[in-house]
Amino acid sequence: MRKILVLGAGRSSSALIDYLIGNAGSQEWSITVGDTSLEAAKEKTANANRADAIQFDANSEGAGAAVEKSDVVISLLPPPLHPTVAGLCLKYKKSLLTASYLSPAMKGLHSEAENSGLLFLNECGLDPGIDHMSAMCVIDRIRGEGGEIFSFESFTGGLIAPDTEPENPWRYKFTWNPRNVVMAGQGTAKFLQNGEFKYIPYQQLFKRVTPVTVPGYGEYEGYANRDSLGYREAYGLQNIQTMLRGTLRNKGFCQAWDILVQLGCTEDSYQMEGVGRMTHHDFMNSFLGFHPEWSVEEKLVHLFHLRPEGPELTRLNWSGLFDNELIGLEAGTPAQILEHILNKRWKLSSQDKDFIIMWHRFRYRQSGVEKEIQAELVSEGQNAVHTAMARTVGLPLGIACKLFLDGKISSRGVRIPVTREFYIPILAELNALGIGLNEREL
Amino acid sequence: MRKILVLGAGRSSSALIDYLIGNAGSQEWSITVGDTSLEAAKEKTANANRADAIQFDANSEGAGAAVEKSDVVISLLPPPLHPTVAGLCLKYKKSLLTASYLSPAMKGLHSEAENSGLLFLNECGLDPGIDHMSAMCVIDRIRGEGGEIFSFESFTGGLIAPDTEPENPWRYKFTWNPRNVVMAGQGTAKFLQNGEFKYIPYQQLFKRVTPVTVPGYGEYEGYANRDSLGYREAYGLQNIQTMLRGTLRNKGFCQAWDILVQLGCTEDSYQMEGVGRMTHHDFMNSFLGFHPEWSVEEKLVHLFHLRPEGPELTRLNWSGLFDNELIGLEAGTPAQILEHILNKRWKLSSQDKDFIIMWHRFRYRQSGVEKEIQAELVSEGQNAVHTAMARTVGLPLGIACKLFLDGKISSRGVRIPVTREFYIPILAELNALGIGLNEREL
Repeated sequence: MRKILVLGAGRSSSALIDYLIGNAGSQEWSITVGDTSLEAAKEKTANANRADAIQFDANSEGAGAAVEKSDVVISLLPPPLHPTVAGLCLKYKKSLLTASYLSPAMKGLHSEAENSGLLFLNECGLDPGIDHMSAMCVIDRIRGEGGEIFSFESFTGGLIAPDTEPENPWRYKFTWNPRNVVMAGQGTAKFLQNGEFKYIPYQQLFKRVTPVTVPGYGEYEGYANRDSLGYREAYGLQNIQTMLRGTLRNKGFCQAWDILVQLGCTEDSYQMEGVGRMTHHDFMNSFLGFHPEWSVEEKLVHLFHLRPEGPELTRLNWSGLFDNELIGLEAGTPAQILEHILNKRWKLSSQDKDFIIMWHRFRYRQSGVEKEIQAELVSEGQNAVHTAMARTVGLPLGIACKLFLDGKISSRGVRIPVTREFYIPILAELNALGIGLNEREL
Repeated sequence: MRKILVLGAGRSSSALIDYLIGNAGSQEWSITVGDTSLEAAKEKTANANRADAIQFDANSEGAGAAVEKSDVVISLLPPPLHPTVAGLCLKYKKSLLTASYLSPAMKGLHSEAENSGLLFLNECGLDPGIDHMSAMCVIDRIRGEGGEIFSFESFTGGLIAPDTEPENPWRYKFTWNPRNVVMAGQGTAKFLQNGEFKYIPYQQLFKRVTPVTVPGYGEYEGYANRDSLGYREAYGLQNIQTMLRGTLRNKGFCQAWDILVQLGCTEDSYQMEGVGRMTHHDFMNSFLGFHPEWSVEEKLVHLFHLRPEGPELTRLNWSGLFDNELIGLEAGTPAQILEHILNKRWKLSSQDKDFIIMWHRFRYRQSGVEKEIQAELVSEGQNAVHTAMARTVGLPLGIACKLFLDGKISSRGVRIPVTREFYIPILAELNALGIGLNEREL
């Protein structure tokens, strides 16, 4: 009997826990789900035979005991808690799997984990995760056939299904941590374009988008992620000329979102005044000049040279941003208030289906000929609980856990899943579960 | 014999030290100037009779001894060092004068300083300093005559004299800490406009300027300072409808500077790649998309809808930003590199004269009639060493020091110079030294 400790029972955990419980009988696993809320943990284990729920607080004295009893730990906790969890894993000699970006703190544990014979696997979810694995699968094949890759672009987005809320002009709702959506892109995006290092600051990010057409699914646009440069080494593409990773949105999203960015509505560095009496309209007006004869919409038209009935104002209006409705908070930063307002319209209703789309473009030279491969993954959720997001984040982790416990992973130390021993079996099982990429040579 | 300890012998210190030395005989003062560079301190005291130079490091063990020997301390050190200096002043029961913005850390020392009978005077330079004093002089007079002030706007700029470098289209050079100029405005500006709280983020700051015409001096433009709201209480203007403090530049400066802001050239959060081989032109190009057939100028024209021969590109071009000249640094953040490039053209030549301009606008109601007063201060430097900036920052401190040692200041605790016992004698002596405001009722 192998014991798996899952930390975090939030909305991303359901598919992972269901997968582990589903495999527990045949694999002889027992599963413990820990969360600061015992209720949340219980809800996810739902009295399954081989699953327990415990109260777990990474910073409490009892945290070590739970780690000590397990054979492997999967953490879905907020990324800042991962170094604490990793410390416990080192202390009790347990391996650790996460779907989070590899932090410098985690990276620093490589030798210690390796010397203890432990695997600390990170970035094994959707994005990062499936993107790495599906890209490396193509990259290794091209290289194996003598191709030289000079350009790699990859975008992933968590959107809503085409038939969900057809009147929503953003084609977007919160299918993931709303705060992260509001804050997305702050900082400077760094990437490589035709051999030139390029930097896009936040104030340009949503203006400089990459158009992406996915056959059968329509037109999207991608904005650059913060750091595309770090993956050159991980992917073995040190001499590549273009390397760009980013986030996908439906066409038109970025131009409307950019209005909120330009106004400063996504700032998180100060508390606004008089929030308790503030309406949505007042919130927007506080970022605009004083013109008593102009409405907020008119000020926006003037400031950003918009058409009054154009797509930007249509989207902002649909989100209720011009409404004379009280916000309903007593205090907050602009970003907190914006999240609260957007959540009134962007919260998933129970029957809403989310929609994951991932798109890669590989350009390479083979026998003197320039070639291009595009590949995309599309996955639709069932409803607001069984989301495609939870599935595509959770299943790679669950499969990696199974492979690890079966002794099929020989890597040790701090890793991301970019080598064959990870991506071949994980992509194969994902494919069997209906999560796979379509590939086209152009 | 009273002993004055001046900390910091940088470029802002010359006028202050000259003033103190000039008064030392009649006032029976002895002056000690301390700096981390003993050379710099010696250069400023220049073998004057009643002045010593010492090596001073606020964080060293010896720092306390220098403070202990003095009767009063004037600190021109970088603001982050002020809490350390204030701690020593509390320990040895010495009063402290600075020209820096009152920090929360300093504010927290109010009771302790007051209970020890000490004065910790802050914001007693130009801006902040003369702006407070000259504004309060008018504000108190208007209120004394039964007027109700509903709007106060105040802008100050450190520019270059009209006859200095007439071909410089920016009408600007570094007359103060270049790094602060490059980083100016980062964060969100908060102010009050016609009763509405307004917030301008960095990405809008240089677009939303206030036009300011100063009779006899021409057209300027002001951008909002970070926090105008805090001064409502200090000025006793709790019910004011418009309260805006800002920074003045020559007309056209902000539109050109905004290009650099929008591109991300003033970012300080990351190191750029390949700086050693980078030209000015490469630096600019790294913030622009890849178009092999377009020059940087053409990309800017396209991205920001500029005229090729327009005022923005003329200014950027004059600063050499499109030149194929090596930057001359091995590493740096965008802000550090931009400062380095600008300093090639914006460094004061020895005979360049700087130019201070301060402008206030007061609007008030008196006996049912709306009235307006504008006031401005203009001060021209002699050359690159004897700048108007050093004079207008240093003299208020020197005069405050004299008043304090003469027992003419009764306030104790942490203060800024907004009350009559400060502003009446300080403005009077400044006026005698040729630094005064012109006032016009409109």
